[in-house]
Amino acid sequence: MITHPDFVAEPWRLRASGLDLSVLAQVESIFALSNGYLGWRGNLDEGEPHGLPGSYLNGVFELRSLPYAEAGFGYPESGQTMINVTNGKVIRLLVDDEPFDIRTGVLRSHELCLDFRTGLLRRRVEWISPAGRAIRMTSSRIVSFSQRSIAAVDYGVEVLDGPARVVLQSELIANEPLPPQAADPRAARELADVLEGAEHRSDGRRVALAHVTRQSRLTIASSMDHVVDGPAGTKVSSDSSPDLGRVSVSADLVPGQRLRLVKMVAFAWSGSRSLPALRDQADAALTGATSAGWDDLVAEQRSYLDDYWEHCDIRIEGDVRLQQAARFALFHTLQAGARAEGVAIPAKGLTGPGYDGHAFWDMESYVLAALTYLVPEAAANGLRWRQDTLPAAITRASQLGLAGAAFPWRTIHGEECSGYWPAGVAAFHINADIADAVLRYVNATGNREFEQSVGVDLLVHTARLWTSLGYFDADGRFRIDGVTGPDEYSAVADNNVYTNLMAQRNLVAAADTIARHPERVADLQVGDDEAAIWRRAAAGMFIPFDHTLGVHPQSEGFTHHEKWDFEKTGADQYPLLLHFPYFDLYRKQVVKQADLVLAMHFRSDAFTAEQKARNFAYYDALTVRDSSLSSSVQAIIAAEIGQLDLAHDYLAESAFLDLDDTGHNTRDGLHIASLAGIWSALVAGYGGMRHDETGLAFTPRLPRGFSRMSFGLRMAGGTLRVKLTRTHATYDRTSGPPLHLRHYDTSMQVASLEPQTLPIPPAAVAGKTPTQPAHRSPAPYSGGTPDRQDQRSRR
Amino acid sequence: MITHPDFVAEPWRLRASGLDLSVLAQVESIFALSNGYLGWRGNLDEGEPHGLPGSYLNGVFELRSLPYAEAGFGYPESGQTMINVTNGKVIRLLVDDEPFDIRTGVLRSHELCLDFRTGLLRRRVEWISPAGRAIRMTSSRIVSFSQRSIAAVDYGVEVLDGPARVVLQSELIANEPLPPQAADPRAARELADVLEGAEHRSDGRRVALAHVTRQSRLTIASSMDHVVDGPAGTKVSSDSSPDLGRVSVSADLVPGQRLRLVKMVAFAWSGSRSLPALRDQADAALTGATSAGWDDLVAEQRSYLDDYWEHCDIRIEGDVRLQQAARFALFHTLQAGARAEGVAIPAKGLTGPGYDGHAFWDMESYVLAALTYLVPEAAANGLRWRQDTLPAAITRASQLGLAGAAFPWRTIHGEECSGYWPAGVAAFHINADIADAVLRYVNATGNREFEQSVGVDLLVHTARLWTSLGYFDADGRFRIDGVTGPDEYSAVADNNVYTNLMAQRNLVAAADTIARHPERVADLQVGDDEAAIWRRAAAGMFIPFDHTLGVHPQSEGFTHHEKWDFEKTGADQYPLLLHFPYFDLYRKQVVKQADLVLAMHFRSDAFTAEQKARNFAYYDALTVRDSSLSSSVQAIIAAEIGQLDLAHDYLAESAFLDLDDTGHNTRDGLHIASLAGIWSALVAGYGGMRHDETGLAFTPRLPRGFSRMSFGLRMAGGTLRVKLTRTHATYDRTSGPPLHLRHYDTSMQVASLEPQTLPIPPAAVAGKTPTQPAHRSPAPYSGGTPDRQDQRSRR
Repeated sequence: MITHPDFVAEPWRLRASGLDLSVLAQVESIFALSNGYLGWRGNLDEGEPHGLPGSYLNGVFELRSLPYAEAGFGYPESGQTMINVTNGKVIRLLVDDEPFDIRTGVLRSHELCLDFRTGLLRRRVEWISPAGRAIRMTSSRIVSFSQRSIAAVDYGVEVLDGPARVVLQSELIANEPLPPQAADPRAARELADVLEGAEHRSDGRRVALAHVTRQSRLTIASSMDHVVDGPAGTKVSSDSSPDLGRVSVSADLVPGQRLRLVKMVAFAWSGSRSLPALRDQADAALTGATSAGWDDLVAEQRSYLDDYWEHCDIRIEGDVRLQQAARFALFHTLQAGARAEGVAIPAKGLTGPGYDGHAFWDMESYVLAALTYLVPEAAANGLRWRQDTLPAAITRASQLGLAGAAFPWRTIHGEECSGYWPAGVAAFHINADIADAVLRYVNATGNREFEQSVGVDLLVHTARLWTSLGYFDADGRFRIDGVTGPDEYSAVADNNVYTNLMAQRNLVAAADTIARHPERVADLQVGDDEAAIWRRAAAGMFIPFDHTLGVHPQSEGFTHHEKWDFEKTGADQYPLLLHFPYFDLYRKQVVKQADLVLAMHFRSDAFTAEQKARNFAYYDALTVRDSSLSSSVQAIIAAEIGQLDLAHDYLAESAFLDLDDTGHNTRDGLHIASLAGIWSALVAGYGGMRHDETGLAFTPRLPRGFSRMSFGLRMAGGTLRVKLTRTHATYDRTSGPPLHLRHYDTSMQVASLEPQTLPIPPAAVAGKTPTQPAHRSPAPYSGGTPDRQDQRSRR
Repeated sequence: MITHPDFVAEPWRLRASGLDLSVLAQVESIFALSNGYLGWRGNLDEGEPHGLPGSYLNGVFELRSLPYAEAGFGYPESGQTMINVTNGKVIRLLVDDEPFDIRTGVLRSHELCLDFRTGLLRRRVEWISPAGRAIRMTSSRIVSFSQRSIAAVDYGVEVLDGPARVVLQSELIANEPLPPQAADPRAARELADVLEGAEHRSDGRRVALAHVTRQSRLTIASSMDHVVDGPAGTKVSSDSSPDLGRVSVSADLVPGQRLRLVKMVAFAWSGSRSLPALRDQADAALTGATSAGWDDLVAEQRSYLDDYWEHCDIRIEGDVRLQQAARFALFHTLQAGARAEGVAIPAKGLTGPGYDGHAFWDMESYVLAALTYLVPEAAANGLRWRQDTLPAAITRASQLGLAGAAFPWRTIHGEECSGYWPAGVAAFHINADIADAVLRYVNATGNREFEQSVGVDLLVHTARLWTSLGYFDADGRFRIDGVTGPDEYSAVADNNVYTNLMAQRNLVAAADTIARHPERVADLQVGDDEAAIWRRAAAGMFIPFDHTLGVHPQSEGFTHHEKWDFEKTGADQYPLLLHFPYFDLYRKQVVKQADLVLAMHFRSDAFTAEQKARNFAYYDALTVRDSSLSSSVQAIIAAEIGQLDLAHDYLAESAFLDLDDTGHNTRDGLHIASLAGIWSALVAGYGGMRHDETGLAFTPRLPRGFSRMSFGLRMAGGTLRVKLTRTHATYDRTSGPPLHLRHYDTSMQVASLEPQTLPIPPAAVAGKTPTQPAHRSPAPYSGGTPDRQDQRSRR
C-alpha cells in the first residue's frame, strides 16, 4: 500500500513528500502523464532508480506467439503486447563527476507534485552528493494535450553551498532493460530488445532515433531538441548510436547560478508510413513545439484543462480526500482518452504495461461511459477505433461460425489476443457493450452524423452477431447459451441476464437506427426482414428468474449452485483466482464483480425497485470484488436502493484503489476503468443519473459525509451542471439548448441561464443493510473531513 | 484408409501382401507387437523406410513443460510424454555392399503376417538388388508374453540366383530421428534427443547400451545377444558407441545356403534402481532367454496364447471378416495389458506415440472392462497401478480443494498432464470409472483379498471425492455441478447423468465395501458417519429428466440448447473439433461420443426399457462419433433395444476402425479402447451380457449376418462359454464352481460339465430405426460372408 509517501490531501493536486523506494513503481503509475497518444510513467528524471520504466505510444505493440498445452480450433496464435518505446524522459545529472542518484548521498528533501489544473508534474529535490556538494534540482514535465506528439521537461539545477561542475545528459534510450515481471496473470509479458535500430542522427542540441519493432514491423521516430540557459562557458554537445541519443550540457556553477535545460521530445509512429515520412513528422512536431517554446506549451495545457474543469469538475464539500480522489480520477480519465485518436484506450491507459496494454470491454462500459459526458469527442474516437477494427471482428465472427462482428475480448490492434477462451471469446457481452456505448454517445450528443457514419455500422454488425449466437427454443424464447458474463468467476453459462438484457437493447437499437438511416440499408446489406428478426429476438429474449428465491439468477441455474464457502476462505486467499482453480470458482455461487448488479445499472428499466433491492442483497453476499470493476457499480446500486452508507464505503474503495494500491498491482499501471467508475459512482450513485431510451433522469441523494456536491455534464451541445445539497438539487444549463430531464417524478425542461431548484424527497426506507462475504466487507469509510485534510487515514 | 495392402481376411491371422509406402505408418501400428511391458511397432527389420519408428517401454517418459497463453491456478506445469526408447528391432542387410531397401531394386514379393495363435510377426520378402542379385529374406519377430523384458527376431537370408557376399548389421539405436508429427491435438509431442548415453559395451555377439532420460531421470538398460548360423567362413564382429550398439555378420552365400541370425534383446528400466542393477537385470533376462533359445521362446508364446484362445476366443460363424477383426481386437487387447505390471495401459497401448502415451479413463471403462473377463490378473494389475498413484491423486484433490483422490485425466506416471482443464480436470467421472472397474473386477473374480488390499482404498478415496465435489441443495438433492462427462463436445455442465449415476454407484460401493472390511476403517480413517453420508449422497443423487421430451438430458439443461446444424456441416468438417471452436460445440446439442448412452450401458438398472429406446433415438440423432469410444457403445444399446441392423453397422465401424484406418490416425497407434470395445459390442451387445450388483445376466440375440457365435468369459475361478445360435443359447461352465446367471427372465445355476441350453425368445418390436446426423450414419455393413473371404469390401 502506498501509505509511505504521505500524500497530502489537497483539492487540486497530488503531492508526495519524501520518496519510499519500495513503492516507487506505484508512485510512477500515479504520477504518470499521458494524453492518450503518448504516455510517460512518473519515472525519475535521472532514470534510476526506477520501479518500472515506461514510455508508451498508444497502439505500438509487438507480436508474440500464444502457446497452448493443448490447442484447439480457433485459438488465437499471436498475441500483441504494448512495448516500452524510446525513453525520452531521461536527464542524467552529474555533480563534480558524481552521478545524481537519490540512493547515494543525502536526500534532504524530495517532492513530487501533480497539479490537476496545470497538468504539470513538478519535482523539487535537495540533495547532498557523496562528496558533500548540496544542490537543488527542479523539473517540470508535461505531456501536451494540445500537441499530442510532444512531451517536454523543464529541468533546472543550482548549487547551494559552493561551486561545482555540473553535467546534464539528456537522452533518448531504446531497448532499456526492464525489471522482471511478477508471475501474475494480470501483469505484462516480458519482451526484451524488441526495437530494431533503423536510424540515428545528432546535430547540436537536436538528436533523433528511429526504430522498427521486430515482429509487428511498426516504425517509430523520436526526436528531441533543447533550449539551454546557463552561465557563460556552458557547453553543449551531442552524439547518437542506434539505441542512444544524447545531448550533453556542462557548466561550472556557483551558488546563485542556475543551469536550465528545456527538453522537447516528439514522436511519430506508423505501421504503414515510411521511415522518412515519420522522421519528418516527428521533426515537424518538434519544430512547432520548440519555436513556440515551453511557456506556450504550458499555457496551452492550462487552457485545455481550464476548459475541462469548468465543464466537468466534480466539486465535493465536506470531504477533501474524496474531492482529491475525484479530481485525480477525472484527470487520469482525461489523460487516458483525450487524444486516443484511431487507437484503443487500454485498461491501464498509458500508465503502465499491465494486461499487456490491451483494451477490454470496460473501455466502453466504464471509460467511454464517463468520457461521453466529459469529452464527447474522445468517446466518439474510441468508437471510431472500434469501427476501424470491424473487418477483424467480422473475420473473427466468421471464423467462429457466426454472422456480424465478434469484437475481441482483449486487443491492441483489433485481433483477438485472448488465450483462454472461456473468459475471452465466450464473453460476447463486449459486443453489446460497444453497441451500448454507441447508443449512449448518440443519446448524449444527438450526433446523427456519427450515428450514420459510425454508429449504425457497429449496431448492425453486433445485432447480427446476436441473432446468430442465440436461438428461439421450442417455447419461442430467445436463448443465448454458453456465454460468459462480466463476472469472471463464472463462465460459459446459459442466458446470462446481463448479456441477454444488453443484447436485447442492442437488437432494438440496431432496428431503430437502421430505420432512421435507410440510406445505409444497401451498403450494410440489411435484408428485408432482418430488422424484424432483431426485434423478434429482442421481444423473445429469455430473462431467467428464480421464483423460489425471488431473485434473478446471474445466469440460468446459477442460484442452484453450491455457495462458495466464505467462512473457510482466509483473508489471505484473495484474489481467489490466485488461490483456487477456475474449475472450483465457476461451479459455485461466488461472484468476482458486478454482473447482475451491473445489469441493474445499465438496464435499470428492466427491474422493479423491489427486484433491485432483493437482487442486490443476494449478490452482495456473494461478491468478493476481486475485480476493480466492481465496487463503483455496487456503490451506484447501493445508493439507488437507499443503502447510502454502504454506497459510500464502496465509493471510497473505488476512489482509493490506486491511491492506496489496495489491489497491490498499481505498479503495473492505474485502473482506468475503476477511475472512470468513480465518476459514475458519484454521478450515477449520488446524482442518481440514468440516461437511456427513456430519457435523462436524476434521483439525487447525498451521503452523510458530503454537505454539497456538484458535477458537470456535457450534453446535447452544452453543459448541464447539477448542484446538490442534502435537501435540494439545482439543474443549471450553463450552456447549450434547453434540456429535458426528470428529477424523481418531476419532468421538466431546463433552459440556459434558468437554473431550476427542486427539493430532494425524504429518503426511502433503506431496509436491512446487505452483507458481504467474510473478510470482504468494504472498509468502513469515515470520511476525509477538512480538519483531517493534512493526513490520510491508514485504510 | 489401409485398403492398399490387400489384407486377406482369414480367421486366425492378419496378412498383408505387397507394401504400399503411403500407408506404412498405419501398417506398423497394426502389426505392432507388445506384451504391455515392451512394445515394438511393426517397423521393417532394416529400419528404413519407416512410417514412424517406435520402440516403447511402458512407463518410460520424458518431462516437458506445459505452456499456457493465460495460465491459471492449479494448471499442471509439467507434462509427460512416452518416448521412443532404444530400438532393438533393426537388422540391416547388405547384398554385395548394396543395402537392402525396398525402395530400390525390384520387390518381387512382400508379405507381413501376424498370427494370433503363435503371436509371431512373420515377414517374407523376395527382392532383386539394383545390381541384379535376387534374395529371399524371412524374419519372425516376437515380443514375449512369458518373458516380459525379451523381444527377439529370427532372421534368415538366402541368395536365389548366384553367389553374393551378405552382411547383416544387428543394431541397438538410441535417439533415432523421428519424422515430424502432424499438428493434430491427438498426436504426440515432438521430443528429440532425450536419451543421455550412460554406458555402452560390446563383446563378441553381445552388445549393451544404457541411457538416462534427460529430465525425468529414468535409467534404461538394453542388451542384445545373437546366435549365428551360416556357412563356413561366416564372420562376426561387434562395436558400440553411446547411441549405437552393433553386431555385424558377414558370409559368402551361394544359392541353397542360408545365413540365419537369431537376435534376442532385453530391456530393463527404472526411476529408482541404479544403472549397474538395471544392466545386470537386462543381462540376466537376456542370458535366460538365450540359454533356452528361440524355439523355447516360440513354444512358450504358443502355449500362452493357446490358453488365452481356449478361454477367451470369440467364434463367429457366417462372417470371416468380423471373425478376423474380433480376434485382431482380442489379440491387441491382450498385448496392451498382459504384462502391464505396475504401469498404466496407454490409450494406444504400446503401438504408437499417440496421445503422448497417456492413459485415460477408457483404460478402466473399456480396456479393463474386457480384460476383467479375459485376463483378470491384468485387470487387477491396472487397478494396482491406480492404487500406486493414489498419493499423487490425493495431492491433486487437495490442490483442487477437494477431499479424497482426484485421479488424473491423462497421465503416465500418475500426475495430471492435462493442459486444458474443461476437458481434463473437470472430467471427474474418471474417478467413478476407476471405482466401477474395482467393482467389476471384484464381482467377476470374487477376489476379496484384492478388495481388501486394493479395492477398498480406491473406493473410499473416490467416494470422498464425490461428497466433497457435490452438495445437497435446498430440496435435498445431491448435485454435482460444473463437471464434464464422457462427451467431449460438452464441458463444465451441471448434473451430468453419466457422472451422477456412476458416482452414485461409487458411493454405495464404498459404503458396502468398508462395511465388509472393518479392519480397514482405522487406517483409512473412515469416520463414524462417513459411510452414512456416502449413502445419503447416493440416495439423494439428482438425475435430471426432461419431462417435455421424455428423455434424460445428458446434463441439466442440455435439451434446451440449440441443436447443431448438421445440414450445414459438410462431410469434410469431421471431426468437428478440428473445424469448429469448443465454444460453439459446447453450447449446442451435438455429442462427440456415447455419454448418456454409455450411462445406459453401465447403469442399465437406472433406466426403463422405454427410456432406453427414447434416449437412444434422441442421442443417436445428435451423436457424430468423432471419438473412437462411441460406436461400440452405440452397438450395445442398439442391440438391447432391438435395433440389430444398426447395432451391426456400429459394430462394424468399431471393428474396422484401425484395420481400415477410418479415423485417419492409426499411424499414431491403435485405438486400444475401441478394440476392447469390439469385445464389449459382441459380448454385451449380441450376448446381451450385463454384470452388476444385481448379478450376471444375458439377453442374447444374433444379428442377421451371424449363424453362430460363442464367447468365453473367465469368471469366479473358471470359464463360462456362451454359445449362441439364432434360436438358442447354451451356457457351458467349462471350468470352475457353479455360476448363477439369468437368461432373459430365467434364473439358473450352471455347473461344470452341465451346459444348459435355452431358447432365445422372439425379437421384441424394434420400433423405428434411429437416425443419425447428416453424413454420420454408420456405413451399412453388408457382412463378410465366406464366399467373399478372400477379398475385403471397400468400405
